[in-house]
Amino acid sequence: MSFLSNCWYVASWSSDIQDGFVALTILDEPILLYRDSRRVPHALSNRCPHRFAPLSMGYLKDDIVECAYHGLRFGPDGSCVFNPHDPVIAKNARIRTYPIMERDTLLWIWMGEPELAESTPVPDLSERFGSEKFRAVCGSMVMEANYQLIVDNLMDVSHGQFLHADALRFDGFFDASHNISQTAESVTSERRFPGVVGSSSLVKYLPNYTGLVDAWASATWHPAGMCLLDNGGTHVGSPETGGVRRCGVHLLTPETASTTRYFYAHVRNYGLDDVRLDEDSRAWHLSAFAGQDKPMIEAVQRMMGGRSFEEMRPVLVSSDGPAMRARRILRGMIAAEQAAGSSDASPQDS
Amino acid sequence: MSFLSNCWYVASWSSDIQDGFVALTILDEPILLYRDSRRVPHALSNRCPHRFAPLSMGYLKDDIVECAYHGLRFGPDGSCVFNPHDPVIAKNARIRTYPIMERDTLLWIWMGEPELAESTPVPDLSERFGSEKFRAVCGSMVMEANYQLIVDNLMDVSHGQFLHADALRFDGFFDASHNISQTAESVTSERRFPGVVGSSSLVKYLPNYTGLVDAWASATWHPAGMCLLDNGGTHVGSPETGGVRRCGVHLLTPETASTTRYFYAHVRNYGLDDVRLDEDSRAWHLSAFAGQDKPMIEAVQRMMGGRSFEEMRPVLVSSDGPAMRARRILRGMIAAEQAAGSSDASPQDS
Amino acid sequence: MSFLSNCWYVASWSSDIQDGFVALTILDEPILLYRDSRRVPHALSNRCPHRFAPLSMGYLKDDIVECAYHGLRFGPDGSCVFNPHDPVIAKNARIRTYPIMERDTLLWIWMGEPELAESTPVPDLSERFGSEKFRAVCGSMVMEANYQLIVDNLMDVSHGQFLHADALRFDGFFDASHNISQTAESVTSERRFPGVVGSSSLVKYLPNYTGLVDAWASATWHPAGMCLLDNGGTHVGSPETGGVRRCGVHLLTPETASTTRYFYAHVRNYGLDDVRLDEDSRAWHLSAFAGQDKPMIEAVQRMMGGRSFEEMRPVLVSSDGPAMRARRILRGMIAAEQAAGSSDASPQDS
Repeated sequence: MSFLSNCWYVASWSSDIQDGFVALTILDEPILLYRDSRRVPHALSNRCPHRFAPLSMGYLKDDIVECAYHGLRFGPDGSCVFNPHDPVIAKNARIRTYPIMERDTLLWIWMGEPELAESTPVPDLSERFGSEKFRAVCGSMVMEANYQLIVDNLMDVSHGQFLHADALRFDGFFDASHNISQTAESVTSERRFPGVVGSSSLVKYLPNYTGLVDAWASATWHPAGMCLLDNGGTHVGSPETGGVRRCGVHLLTPETASTTRYFYAHVRNYGLDDVRLDEDSRAWHLSAFAGQDKPMIEAVQRMMGGRSFEEMRPVLVSSDGPAMRARRILRGMIAAEQAAGSSDASPQDS
Repeated sequence: MSFLSNCWYVASWSSDIQDGFVALTILDEPILLYRDSRRVPHALSNRCPHRFAPLSMGYLKDDIVECAYHGLRFGPDGSCVFNPHDPVIAKNARIRTYPIMERDTLLWIWMGEPELAESTPVPDLSERFGSEKFRAVCGSMVMEANYQLIVDNLMDVSHGQFLHADALRFDGFFDASHNISQTAESVTSERRFPGVVGSSSLVKYLPNYTGLVDAWASATWHPAGMCLLDNGGTHVGSPETGGVRRCGVHLLTPETASTTRYFYAHVRNYGLDDVRLDEDSRAWHLSAFAGQDKPMIEAVQRMMGGRSFEEMRPVLVSSDGPAMRARRILRGMIAAEQAAGSSDASPQDS
Repeated sequence: MSFLSNCWYVASWSSDIQDGFVALTILDEPILLYRDSRRVPHALSNRCPHRFAPLSMGYLKDDIVECAYHGLRFGPDGSCVFNPHDPVIAKNARIRTYPIMERDTLLWIWMGEPELAESTPVPDLSERFGSEKFRAVCGSMVMEANYQLIVDNLMDVSHGQFLHADALRFDGFFDASHNISQTAESVTSERRFPGVVGSSSLVKYLPNYTGLVDAWASATWHPAGMCLLDNGGTHVGSPETGGVRRCGVHLLTPETASTTRYFYAHVRNYGLDDVRLDEDSRAWHLSAFAGQDKPMIEAVQRMMGGRSFEEMRPVLVSSDGPAMRARRILRGMIAAEQAAGSSDASPQDS
């Protein structure tokens, strides 16, 4: 299993890193997250280079990380700043640091070549998380599945007609045209449903609903595991801006080849001050994401029994188009990265 | 680990498949069992060929299986009968089906080449399960052990003198002659004990017991994992038909190389209407099978540490004769099957 | 992973083997421990050579081990003394026996070539466990870590300044000289701290403590996993014999490459009749060994992810000197043993 290294991944919701250390695994690497006294976040290897103790078992003193086992101390730049055992600190006594960016209530980490981080912008989610047009309700969970199976799930919105039929099914879904487009590093799936009977979860929030809506469901993938959804509906013939719109944000960070940390947000353009709707979103996360998607995707992972998607020779349908394009682009990017010799580990930590 | 594919295995007791789906693993393959509206049982691959969802998570509608993930529907013949995504159904959109037969309160499944199923009769257990001469008390359990270790256990009835000494031990067991016979596809072990003091579990049910019995203990193996036992005793010199006779049925279905679904029945020729004796049988299942055989056989599996029986170089005794002949016949049958190129997976599912 | 076979390992505290069988795994081999009617301890393979049943599930009758599965019986010399199935006992029906010695409240086992056991003395711990100068409080636990990681821990007493800072930290530890010496088969680390403020756990037991002590901390390793510690302190300028001295005994027996049975004793030269101090020792075992060392060492094992210590390319400090010398000596001994063709399994059990 290889991952795309040169990519911004979500390490955490900003609010989940406060005082103290948080230990994570990202792309099979042990990561230590913490904030210094100025609240600046840092990401370091969580493995002391001396005796491999998890630094997260240690202490933070004056913005310095002290290993709990033998007292070596590391600065936020990864260098060993104190070795109680020796007058001289060895040059290789340092741990890898990872570029980290705090933006849009998220902490983003760069797992690849540090110099490439600077020239690669962090994904901009400011409209969905920061603007006055939307309200976001966020959550996260770990799925016991490869992240690409979750991308497959998200990029094929048709699964909502079956797996989430209780809330999302409506007649006419499969009559609509399905527009698939792509760029070098993104894929968009777009479906429009003019004049249909809205799904229960849509009409519930649409004022003065009289029987038919113009609905839409689109999804855009960005490498490696970001899916931005845009679903909604409005009165027939009315502008979309007056309708009910949900811009789901789905951010997938591989822990290992078979587990994924899944950050999600339900982003709505209605009832922005209505906390009861926040509760509706959380109930949806629980019923749909945790109660329907998670068991299904994890069952698929188990059904694959360690084989790759290609080895399994899936029988594809047209709704798979976006997900398959995303897989193809990603495969190409990973191959290019490996051909360029860009490893996901810096020399001292490989 | 290879299994014998061209063989009828027990999938389930008939009564355990009612409404709804049952998901099983047999010979490492995921199997879906269900009954249609006419109560006819069907066995299909439990893995949707599209995205590998377990079909058992889906729905049965008008005898059609609908996948819960993306709505593909499959008929009892394994063909995709509805693809909501596309106007045309791909020819390879089908799942493997398995011949299944309901007989003698059991559902039998054929994991090999379908055409060979027709020419191979399902084992006939009608006398033990269907006649007026016997009453059967049935059960099942999963053992964390390779099925051949359970065959070894059953085909060497001498283990009863030690592992089940509390109920089965009697003096003179090892003085008796031990007759071993075999055919191309069966092995029989037969022991007769004329004029011995009966075991406690025998004399308990023998009316007018006065001190000595003519007893017997035989076992016949059929591939891959069927062992039919016949144990009992009668008053010295009396015909066997007047005695206490128990015809244990032991049916082993490999789930994986290290786990087995074990179907068993205690079949008696006495007290046919006495439900208290049914309770005695269930208590015996619990104390002897679950309480003595299971921990021992699972401990042996662990002691082998993943090595094959041959690698372990066992020191054999004469009581191993029947089990060793069964192993030899089975090894030959599996080798012949593999040489003939008969794989246990049909092309579309390999 | 290879172990040093020709070596005395601790199998158990003497008091833990009373009536009945004890089953252990040592160097990946299943071992059966028991005492005969004269209380003489025996160590045999715990795997019946017939059908691989754990003999520990069987019975001890008149100093003979009877297998619970098919009744074969083995004498303390490993030979099969009774085969109920056959008139003749096969010559290869025997199990491996292991030299075992009871000494200093411990049972020591020899896992290598039996003839070498005789010429290799059992480690002498009589002074620590048997003399009137000391009182020992003993315990044991299983650590989910390779035994060498525990040797590393013990041979670098500096970890006490950090991992056990609550009890052991004192100023001046790292100012002291560190003397490292070795023989062909031992390594000693010695540190002396003249005129320092004692650690809390030291001065607590030093009568008339007035502010400064002469302290020391030494550790000696013997193959494969024995570490004898000697820590203490006395009034400045006074003889050591008048001070507080603790001679910790740490005996590591590999179960597998990643689990270790750890026998330890806290041996003190003060309050020999004070049972409250015994409780202090047990509290120390619980807080320091189980509460601090165990989670740390097990975390290190996990951080190594199955890689060898060398593959991990540790950044070493001077305090690692003793542990690294011990690793080097041990590596050489294992290589020599393997070159000499001395396997850890006798022919009939390999």
